[in-house]
Amino acid sequence: MAARLSDTELAAALDELNEGLASGWKIEDGKLAKRFVFDDFVSAFSFMTAAALTAERMNHHPEWFNVYGRVDVALTTHDAGGITRLDFELAAAMEAAVA
Amino acid sequence: MAARLSDTELAAALDELNEGLASGWKIEDGKLAKRFVFDDFVSAFSFMTAAALTAERMNHHPEWFNVYGRVDVALTTHDAGGITRLDFELAAAMEAAVA
Repeated sequence: MAARLSDTELAAALDELNEGLASGWKIEDGKLAKRFVFDDFVSAFSFMTAAALTAERMNHHPEWFNVYGRVDVALTTHDAGGITRLDFELAAAMEAAVA
Repeated sequence: MAARLSDTELAAALDELNEGLASGWKIEDGKLAKRFVFDDFVSAFSFMTAAALTAERMNHHPEWFNVYGRVDVALTTHDAGGITRLDFELAAAMEAAVA
């Protein structure tokens, strides 16, 4: 099982994830979070579909809210009681999906 | 444009929508709302995909939150400042998708 990251590991992983991103990920309420904004619903849901396939393959699933072109993502690893490398892997896959 | 329903119209439409449903829709924070619970993420996201296609065809989109098998839906018509027949049409289509 993936282990919860220490504060030091978390900060390093966040720096690495956000490198080169116009809009970065943050830690919010103990979760790895980002608001994605797309032009319309089709673009937003296409992103969600790509992310859903990755999430299912990883067997690691997001919490997310969508309204029209907005997708608010919050990632955590329930079994580990916090953020693990799995959350960063899913976040990176989401960024690859929008790249 | 669809007009905001009166309280009387809303109550009648809600009764009609919920007739025969094991778990009904409610009015929450001025929106037509329901929590759908599925066995797993694949079932939940399959439902969302079916609903997304209908929503796009209607050009009327949901607010929704998903975590694993749970999908919390809240429907409102922003242009009308409240709940309209469009919300009930999308809700009925969502029920058809899970039936």
